[in-house]
Amino acid sequence: MADLRFVEVSSISNDKINIFGRLGRHRQPLPLLFNGSGIEVVVTGSDLWIDFETDSDFHEPWVAYELNGAFMGRQMVLPGEHSICLFRNMEPTTPKRVRFYRELQAMSEDSRCKVLVKGLKLDGEFMDVPVYERRIEFIGDSITSGEGSYGNVTDVDWLAMYMSASVNYATMTAKALNADYHIISQGGWGVFCGWDNDIRHNIPSVYEKVCGLANGQPVADELGTLEPYDFSSWQPDVIVVNLGTNDASSFNQPPILNPDDGKTYKMRLNEDGSHNREDELKIEKAAVAFLEMLRKNNPKAHIAWCYGMLGSDLNLILTEAINTYREKSNDHNVSFFQLPNTTMETVGAHMHPGLKSHQEASKVLVNYLQNKMGW
Amino acid sequence: MADLRFVEVSSISNDKINIFGRLGRHRQPLPLLFNGSGIEVVVTGSDLWIDFETDSDFHEPWVAYELNGAFMGRQMVLPGEHSICLFRNMEPTTPKRVRFYRELQAMSEDSRCKVLVKGLKLDGEFMDVPVYERRIEFIGDSITSGEGSYGNVTDVDWLAMYMSASVNYATMTAKALNADYHIISQGGWGVFCGWDNDIRHNIPSVYEKVCGLANGQPVADELGTLEPYDFSSWQPDVIVVNLGTNDASSFNQPPILNPDDGKTYKMRLNEDGSHNREDELKIEKAAVAFLEMLRKNNPKAHIAWCYGMLGSDLNLILTEAINTYREKSNDHNVSFFQLPNTTMETVGAHMHPGLKSHQEASKVLVNYLQNKMGW
Amino acid sequence: MADLRFVEVSSISNDKINIFGRLGRHRQPLPLLFNGSGIEVVVTGSDLWIDFETDSDFHEPWVAYELNGAFMGRQMVLPGEHSICLFRNMEPTTPKRVRFYRELQAMSEDSRCKVLVKGLKLDGEFMDVPVYERRIEFIGDSITSGEGSYGNVTDVDWLAMYMSASVNYATMTAKALNADYHIISQGGWGVFCGWDNDIRHNIPSVYEKVCGLANGQPVADELGTLEPYDFSSWQPDVIVVNLGTNDASSFNQPPILNPDDGKTYKMRLNEDGSHNREDELKIEKAAVAFLEMLRKNNPKAHIAWCYGMLGSDLNLILTEAINTYREKSNDHNVSFFQLPNTTMETVGAHMHPGLKSHQEASKVLVNYLQNKMGW
Amino acid sequence: MADLRFVEVSSISNDKINIFGRLGRHRQPLPLLFNGSGIEVVVTGSDLWIDFETDSDFHEPWVAYELNGAFMGRQMVLPGEHSICLFRNMEPTTPKRVRFYRELQAMSEDSRCKVLVKGLKLDGEFMDVPVYERRIEFIGDSITSGEGSYGNVTDVDWLAMYMSASVNYATMTAKALNADYHIISQGGWGVFCGWDNDIRHNIPSVYEKVCGLANGQPVADELGTLEPYDFSSWQPDVIVVNLGTNDASSFNQPPILNPDDGKTYKMRLNEDGSHNREDELKIEKAAVAFLEMLRKNNPKAHIAWCYGMLGSDLNLILTEAINTYREKSNDHNVSFFQLPNTTMETVGAHMHPGLKSHQEASKVLVNYLQNKMGW
Repeated sequence: MADLRFVEVSSISNDKINIFGRLGRHRQPLPLLFNGSGIEVVVTGSDLWIDFETDSDFHEPWVAYELNGAFMGRQMVLPGEHSICLFRNMEPTTPKRVRFYRELQAMSEDSRCKVLVKGLKLDGEFMDVPVYERRIEFIGDSITSGEGSYGNVTDVDWLAMYMSASVNYATMTAKALNADYHIISQGGWGVFCGWDNDIRHNIPSVYEKVCGLANGQPVADELGTLEPYDFSSWQPDVIVVNLGTNDASSFNQPPILNPDDGKTYKMRLNEDGSHNREDELKIEKAAVAFLEMLRKNNPKAHIAWCYGMLGSDLNLILTEAINTYREKSNDHNVSFFQLPNTTMETVGAHMHPGLKSHQEASKVLVNYLQNKMGW
Repeated sequence: MADLRFVEVSSISNDKINIFGRLGRHRQPLPLLFNGSGIEVVVTGSDLWIDFETDSDFHEPWVAYELNGAFMGRQMVLPGEHSICLFRNMEPTTPKRVRFYRELQAMSEDSRCKVLVKGLKLDGEFMDVPVYERRIEFIGDSITSGEGSYGNVTDVDWLAMYMSASVNYATMTAKALNADYHIISQGGWGVFCGWDNDIRHNIPSVYEKVCGLANGQPVADELGTLEPYDFSSWQPDVIVVNLGTNDASSFNQPPILNPDDGKTYKMRLNEDGSHNREDELKIEKAAVAFLEMLRKNNPKAHIAWCYGMLGSDLNLILTEAINTYREKSNDHNVSFFQLPNTTMETVGAHMHPGLKSHQEASKVLVNYLQNKMGW
Repeated sequence: MADLRFVEVSSISNDKINIFGRLGRHRQPLPLLFNGSGIEVVVTGSDLWIDFETDSDFHEPWVAYELNGAFMGRQMVLPGEHSICLFRNMEPTTPKRVRFYRELQAMSEDSRCKVLVKGLKLDGEFMDVPVYERRIEFIGDSITSGEGSYGNVTDVDWLAMYMSASVNYATMTAKALNADYHIISQGGWGVFCGWDNDIRHNIPSVYEKVCGLANGQPVADELGTLEPYDFSSWQPDVIVVNLGTNDASSFNQPPILNPDDGKTYKMRLNEDGSHNREDELKIEKAAVAFLEMLRKNNPKAHIAWCYGMLGSDLNLILTEAINTYREKSNDHNVSFFQLPNTTMETVGAHMHPGLKSHQEASKVLVNYLQNKMGW
Repeated sequence: MADLRFVEVSSISNDKINIFGRLGRHRQPLPLLFNGSGIEVVVTGSDLWIDFETDSDFHEPWVAYELNGAFMGRQMVLPGEHSICLFRNMEPTTPKRVRFYRELQAMSEDSRCKVLVKGLKLDGEFMDVPVYERRIEFIGDSITSGEGSYGNVTDVDWLAMYMSASVNYATMTAKALNADYHIISQGGWGVFCGWDNDIRHNIPSVYEKVCGLANGQPVADELGTLEPYDFSSWQPDVIVVNLGTNDASSFNQPPILNPDDGKTYKMRLNEDGSHNREDELKIEKAAVAFLEMLRKNNPKAHIAWCYGMLGSDLNLILTEAINTYREKSNDHNVSFFQLPNTTMETVGAHMHPGLKSHQEASKVLVNYLQNKMGW
């Protein structure tokens, strides 16, 4: 092993590094704001290390890394400075492709949570990274946060370690399509309200910020996560919206008091068990507005609402919204696609999609996007 | 082998025979009008034969038979009287369950096509048949007719031998759910028009007749296929509507002259490749009307529009129709469920679903109906 | 349909017909002596019929047919003359490849059993058939006779209808390797003795006759099945010997009286449940002698003893035999390969391999032969 | 989180900890000598940490951990003291089952390599651990060391990170059978010689020491790895011997000079490509002697030689050895079982079994042992 030199991540030229996930104006250290946010380099040399800093309170981040496309390691990172060896003692002249990424979703419930990549230590050279011609944005809830993708089927705690980008249909789909990708997701949130009827927990309210989910001071100040996101910096070819599962759950949950306005909220069921029509229309209205927001910020992207991995109860509401949006906007660059439901054979921890469910979803989504986009 | 005695099918009491598929007033000989139409008996004795008569011109029927739930044989039947041995030399005291059924869809293009079961020859006794507590009606097109479920992937002729009920998601689903079932399907037909823009080829126009597809004289006269169907005779718990695939195809086909009115018909594409809105609305209107027709005749059935085995292009049109119907009727006992698309790995002959595609569709449909119906 | 002309099978030139399975000197009508024995032609024209004659007593033959490599039909044939339509109304100029073959093994227990192909009726022309460069001989027992490959897992009768060449690892393997193949197999037989200790039921005793299993008068006289087989007429590249399963069973069965010599036979277990060594050595000796017989008649073939689809109890005995043979003969062109065991997930009728087991066995056998033979 | 207390591993009573893998007399700190060597505890409390120390030169160890049977993390450990959090913030009253184990095989090529568990830090109580009634010893080479079970198919470096116990048929099999297990394996080694003809690289030479592979000073002195292993401390029910793959490779490798005796060694091929008989007999002799050694030390264990995951070239040699051993010893408590070969669909890194191959092997091995052992 030759001596290692440290290179700041911001000093690596664009053709020598791929950065996954949304970014604000901060680039050094590089914040990894969402699950799947990460970096990819191709280097020669025998050894490669990554230096990064993390903080958190209850929900510590986890990170994972890949070598030449294959999963190699995954670990918890507790607050502090970290220097992790990504490989060592390798044949020095052969280029090695390495991805390092955040496993944990943006944590709206842990105001200190952050992962900041400072740089790499290596004894080789940076080579050109693969160019991903396609771009996909995945917007979702716990499914897209990979909740339950790790853990035993009997595990029920709600903890960071069960979430991932490594076992995740979004990552699998982007890889299979050779695409760059962003994930914006939050467990428990919906397009109109959260699983527990909390109307503050809707993705549209945070979509236009860099990372509206990382909203705690002083992290938000430090990283600018609450600043408006510059959509022009990264325009996707496809936006996959995987929302609705928590809106559907809310009908079966008790009312909740919103401390912001002192009011109680509850999505209601009719006596026959069907959804109250007024409440259905709230979801529909929110979905239409979200489609308008997506289109405003992403003029050319195909928007595919992809739903169904934990039941398809809202198929008709979501399509009603999409059809209403189409009628209003005359915008036909939008579609609805149902993903395969999770079964007892494919389930992961705490009744969320497991590895097999993510694999199944990715397989059909890849097929769908190939057909739809002519890829 | 003891001497065999002949028993007319109509003389077997209801608890000793299961009849699958729609029936009109004719019971002796028993017409098998659709694919999947057939009989099931449980008998003792060493041997069992079935006597039946068929006729056809270009499109000869095929039949298949099962022993104790396992596929045993499948063969072409040319015009004439047939007597087929279903088993022989078996241990006489053990009850054997046998299904004999039509593989070929009702043939709107072969006015002579018919299969008439006369009776059974046996040396044992009829035992009680299984009681199927659940009833499912499957309404569809070539997919539900099992087109391409037999044959090599390279085969392109449009022939009876490639169609089946034996390799068919409808049959698989009914079996998996322990359900009685009816199939009403026709290759090339849609809810509004056929794959080739022929507006006469819509399933709603024949739905209320016993078998409006078997419309040739004198078979229709003989069997009463064009008489109104008595829906009270068999009320399904679920109606699976698998229509839309041909309506979608029509947009990509040339105009067609309808000889009935001398007019030319064509579903139009916009310049950007999207569907002409007026033409979309024709499908939607037809689908709404069909849902009303289904509800009128089946007051309590859950109606599940299950679509997508050959692409999901009409997801938004079909759901728009369902939502319009829901709004108009205030009937919420209707749902939309997307079936898995056929891929290069699951395709059968002439680009239709093959065995694996039917198996995949059945697997998810069974899961869906179990959840939806509390089965 | 144009008028059909009848063509005797023997008048079709070798490049226009493939004949599968062992033949003696009789070629018109062509006897199909074993399961998998059949013919393959490639024809133009719209229709194709096959004329054949069968006889049988208790165990009626079944036949199956394929179009362009895809299974199309399967049916029982009772004694008499048969004329079956293999396809009709097809596009006349396109060549169609058709296989017609016997499903039922050579029946040592039905002295009348025979299938004789007389000829074909067609309105097109015979085209060149595929040339199979590789040749495989499969020698086996009920597994290779496809016993239980049809039928429900609960079926226990021992009947012709449960056997097949259509759902059979031998057929699957030959197809996957693009090979011509012969099957010589008999349910219940072993290399030394049958499952029930009957020492007359050993395959070596019939191997050198055309079809020593079809030993009943007058069929044997008529077809010459008991005449010496002319091995020079068809030399295999590989001989797959799938024997031993019944020899293993015999240890757990009661003694049997051999009416030929009035003696009682029984393969014995030691008190600890292990095999009596003397009896093991009987199997070993028989296996060595069989290898010598195979080599004498097939000087260049690789001999692969492939065993294990119903347990691998005799692994050590069979390999001891092979090693003894190797030592004695200095012939190293022989190998042992274990096939995957049948499990509750892959079992067919009466505890024999089902479709999935045959598929699994074929998959690994194809892989093995590709490596072994450099195919 | 309550305050954590540190508990030395040696102070945990036997019913509160399961230790996997061979042990010598050293228990504090607890050396994890082989891949799969590890500990399992069941604890209450919110947090659990493990303290351990490692050393290494070129080949750093990797460790993995599971929560309630599910894989959670895997990471490289470089020389020094480590304290890793295994879980935190969990519901404190629920018992959590945790396994922590070494991924890297005993390293004969890294004299400093060691992993020493000091103890656990927790805020809960130790509960009774599962009692594993069955014991299996796995003896093998790179396959059993999980070489290539991580890494991309294109990776060819020979590095610690590609090896594992987490993706390993031995671990999978033990788990599926609810068994305690030991692994003794070394990449490149055989029963007679290594892949490169190095006759020093044979497993029998190290089998009777605690861990003869960890032979470097001062680690061997410190941990007593070269001391005789006390077989009476842990008697397996089954010994799975997965050796032969490297002996087979040696025939195709160049000669090698043994520095210990100055001689050159080479397993020879005959001109026709077959194995030189004298050299075959060296393997056979070594295998016979190894079986005698295994039996001497494990009087009651069933010895199953399970081979074939990277080809089955030595089937006949290995069975010849087993049969010779049986003949010599009159010991019949030994068997041969072929494992499924690795294919292009199941391969991992540098042409070794990948995840799917290990899963396939485990599936059939579990089935085999269940039948063989009456489990």
